[in-house]
Amino acid sequence: MFPEKLTIHGLTELYRSGATTPLAVVEEILARLAASPDPAIWISLVPAAELRAAAASLTAAGYKADQPLWGIPFAAKDNIDTAGLVTSAACPAFAYQPAADSTVVAKLRAAGALLVGKTNLDQFATGLNGTRSPYGAPRCVFDTDYVSGGSSSGSAVAVARGQVVFALGTDTAGSGRVPAAFNDLVGIKPTKGLLSTAGVVPAVRSQDCVTVLAHSAADGDLVRQVAEGFDGADPYSRPAGFHSLKLEKFRFGVLSGEEREFYGDEAASALYDAAIDRLVTLGGTPVPFDYKPLRECAHLLYGGPWVAERLAAVEDFIADHAANMDPTVRAIIEGAKGKTAVEAYRGHYALSAYSQYINGLWRDLDILLLPTAPTIYKVADMLADPVRLNSNLGRYTNFVNLLDCSAVAVPGGFTPAGLPFGVTLVAPAFADADLAVLGDRLHRAARADLPGPVLAPVSAPDALPILAVGAHLSGMPLNHELTSVGGRLAGVVRTAPDYRLYALAGTVPPKPGLVRDPGFAGPGILAEEWWLPPAALGAFIARIPAPLGVGKVTLADGRQVTSFLCESYALEGATEITHHGGWRAYRASLS
Amino acid sequence: MFPEKLTIHGLTELYRSGATTPLAVVEEILARLAASPDPAIWISLVPAAELRAAAASLTAAGYKADQPLWGIPFAAKDNIDTAGLVTSAACPAFAYQPAADSTVVAKLRAAGALLVGKTNLDQFATGLNGTRSPYGAPRCVFDTDYVSGGSSSGSAVAVARGQVVFALGTDTAGSGRVPAAFNDLVGIKPTKGLLSTAGVVPAVRSQDCVTVLAHSAADGDLVRQVAEGFDGADPYSRPAGFHSLKLEKFRFGVLSGEEREFYGDEAASALYDAAIDRLVTLGGTPVPFDYKPLRECAHLLYGGPWVAERLAAVEDFIADHAANMDPTVRAIIEGAKGKTAVEAYRGHYALSAYSQYINGLWRDLDILLLPTAPTIYKVADMLADPVRLNSNLGRYTNFVNLLDCSAVAVPGGFTPAGLPFGVTLVAPAFADADLAVLGDRLHRAARADLPGPVLAPVSAPDALPILAVGAHLSGMPLNHELTSVGGRLAGVVRTAPDYRLYALAGTVPPKPGLVRDPGFAGPGILAEEWWLPPAALGAFIARIPAPLGVGKVTLADGRQVTSFLCESYALEGATEITHHGGWRAYRASLS
Repeated sequence: MFPEKLTIHGLTELYRSGATTPLAVVEEILARLAASPDPAIWISLVPAAELRAAAASLTAAGYKADQPLWGIPFAAKDNIDTAGLVTSAACPAFAYQPAADSTVVAKLRAAGALLVGKTNLDQFATGLNGTRSPYGAPRCVFDTDYVSGGSSSGSAVAVARGQVVFALGTDTAGSGRVPAAFNDLVGIKPTKGLLSTAGVVPAVRSQDCVTVLAHSAADGDLVRQVAEGFDGADPYSRPAGFHSLKLEKFRFGVLSGEEREFYGDEAASALYDAAIDRLVTLGGTPVPFDYKPLRECAHLLYGGPWVAERLAAVEDFIADHAANMDPTVRAIIEGAKGKTAVEAYRGHYALSAYSQYINGLWRDLDILLLPTAPTIYKVADMLADPVRLNSNLGRYTNFVNLLDCSAVAVPGGFTPAGLPFGVTLVAPAFADADLAVLGDRLHRAARADLPGPVLAPVSAPDALPILAVGAHLSGMPLNHELTSVGGRLAGVVRTAPDYRLYALAGTVPPKPGLVRDPGFAGPGILAEEWWLPPAALGAFIARIPAPLGVGKVTLADGRQVTSFLCESYALEGATEITHHGGWRAYRASLS
Repeated sequence: MFPEKLTIHGLTELYRSGATTPLAVVEEILARLAASPDPAIWISLVPAAELRAAAASLTAAGYKADQPLWGIPFAAKDNIDTAGLVTSAACPAFAYQPAADSTVVAKLRAAGALLVGKTNLDQFATGLNGTRSPYGAPRCVFDTDYVSGGSSSGSAVAVARGQVVFALGTDTAGSGRVPAAFNDLVGIKPTKGLLSTAGVVPAVRSQDCVTVLAHSAADGDLVRQVAEGFDGADPYSRPAGFHSLKLEKFRFGVLSGEEREFYGDEAASALYDAAIDRLVTLGGTPVPFDYKPLRECAHLLYGGPWVAERLAAVEDFIADHAANMDPTVRAIIEGAKGKTAVEAYRGHYALSAYSQYINGLWRDLDILLLPTAPTIYKVADMLADPVRLNSNLGRYTNFVNLLDCSAVAVPGGFTPAGLPFGVTLVAPAFADADLAVLGDRLHRAARADLPGPVLAPVSAPDALPILAVGAHLSGMPLNHELTSVGGRLAGVVRTAPDYRLYALAGTVPPKPGLVRDPGFAGPGILAEEWWLPPAALGAFIARIPAPLGVGKVTLADGRQVTSFLCESYALEGATEITHHGGWRAYRASLS
């Protein structure tokens, strides 16, 4: 009855229609867990009886449309506190019983989500490959000789194998993106501080993010929205900003020259080119840029002082328990012992310079399109050369949090050998919503059969509507005044019947005037509803010349929307064109 | 001919009127330098012949109104590069010949300012007292037994003694504010990153600011505006933001309880209360708040890891030249040698928590009013107990840069013993312009004879005008919709004669409608011109209900300004009130 890949949209449709219940879904999940071919996915599970009871409780209460994750089973990486289960960070000697849910898990549960269990990870989230855990190495679901990617290894494999609908990961160097790439998933890496890290074991506290792994950007972005929010309990929490992206015609940075490095993986290189081609079909213009400063920046995370944050996170523990740690993780973290405060600040100085570099890039480019990882390795190879190969995996991900970017990793197809490849869209901070839209489009451009709805762009949370009636309509001479300031076309609407439209005399370009005549019963006037950021709306209105202005227009559906209007004195010499039903039809009638 | 205290406004008036020339001013400066009673102010001077030649060149070319600092003599602290003079940072063994002007000095020179020389400082800008220099200790101009304050010691005393009109300082812990307080000056401490530090010897590079010392906030703020600007050569440079402050009715935080500490200086305590009283007369409401977290934050600058930035700045030098350093400065900087990177990050975690605390304060308070320094010390006492007493001086200044605040230090009067006291206004980042206005008002509230113009508030650089015609006029029921979103009243204006005003029927609160009637020759309608940030204007217009709207209105002076207008259909049942000349007069006629 259930598809192998479970999606929020799919389950919610089944719940809404009454075709299934959370209890039935949980039975399916329990069956899948029992039949799991990979023994290294989970560190702990919610007891079956408890999971059934939670699902039964939801089932008894009935579907709640106001809970966007109602009855959706999910997993949390085992460095994220969930009340009732131990938090281990994949280090048994470190494990503790948390007093409460982490902020993000509390938000998901409040939205109706069902926790299934805690997933495996590279110990202390230190790694991008998934092999650094005493609980075993989860495997790439497409070829079990290969690594799953990490550090959110179990979360990725649990979603890929349909054991949960989505999973929380964390991401400092790429831990939420690389395992998405290696398991054909979307990895949402939100802007730092957007999702609270209160109740999350720190890796590099100033850089840590909670992430979402899911089968589609629509699912991942929905979870991101539910989980985000300012949290006074997290010193790095910050209020949400909003950075809009161009979604139709945009410029995207691509690797070039010597910086285009796939470590000999020609198939991955070809898949990167294919992703570039797809983004072109979506309206993007590829722009080669110099990745070198970002690569150098990426190197700071392990090669620079930030590794001392990993030591700060576990310093007390490591003093007594170093022998209980994964030897690779231990060596990396203990490598920070000699680092001085002077080195820490020198690292920050270097970072400031790289920040200025990427800020310069953002003046020319809307987004970057990068390979998520340049290649994938076999478990055996990774274990034989654990630091160098791991470093290779992070080549294109490590800079992202240091330079305060948002990122969405999306599937990028398969090599002829059947190995998965992924690409990541990178944008400035707070572009999360639009980046997920672009990610969804890029994903669907290669996968027409992707389940669930297309992710629709949203306007800025506080964007404001204005009706375009004449020269600002799409394709008309002044439309660019709306598009160039972040305006979004929300749809075509019709005014109430009591509006008249006039072609004004002597206007260049030609413009109409909309005037209300109470009691008049005309056809209504077709207009376009655009949404603008408030500052753009203010600036736009400030530039409107007399006799035009704006006021509230009543639509056929009863809504009142800010619209172009015309001062009545200007109707002198104007031609009434109301019977055309709109400016576009009138202009067409002239040709 | 010249007053003892030189001001930009005063000299500019003399230049403009032809009453004096830069050459005459420079002769006066040279005479004052020759007669200087304090031998510790300057480290190096521009040779007299060179200074005369620069002044003669300006004099020959004639006054340039587009150069706001034309012919204004100034000093630069000797940690700021100026082409032609050595930069020593008050450490002769460290001195070097810079290849070029620092960015800020280049901007000042381009605006017509004349560099007089380089001033003394606490070595490597490490100190708040002025005694830590091999070039001697400049003295408080009101009692030479007392310290000048530092580290911008020479800059402050040079301005206070009228040897220059203004001076550049730097400020990490309070170095631009404490010497202002001890010499009856205004100290402008701009938001971090607003003035470039390219070409400035770093103290704590992530926290350093270039500051301005002057006799008035108007002078200081003018220099700030000339000197600011994004600079790609400074990794910490950032584009200017704009944070507006309430200038009429505002809430200001004041010390309370155990956190109100003047180290036994009752006279300073009384002067702090007097400053609070003055700010109340200017429209402020004092609000006691808990200073403790800010005091703890302040402690981080020297007691925490940031001192390692001082070591990072001079690490190569100190390896060979420790013996050539001021012993107190050396001990402070070498104290960082044992600091680890882990400690550095722990300091950042603590700072993040304090940032959340002050962000909470800013939700309740517009500004803070703090003593600049809690007391002043004699040079002999400072030399005997150099670290503890210096730490006392920074009690109320050290947190400001760490927590990304703007600050303006203003004179706060004199104790019965004739010793100066200062207070500092502190606000969030990018409130620099408005903070200077409040500082100017506070300064003038105690000093009616202060020379120069009152500093006028400016609107956001991109604020937009809208005419209030009716219920949004000052004192009318909807005026708060403008004031609560940062609107500023720019003035009262009158429309062109061809506008009619109507009292609309059935509006609550009562509202007028303004309508243009081309050819009509009426009295014109009085209105208020308000300026709003674009986003506020957009949001404001989006809320205006029909039949009101906005469009362009022509004023009596010919300008076209966005204004309230009324749809013509709403004039049904309305009463024409054009002959009253405005809504306010009409409303008054009813009572």
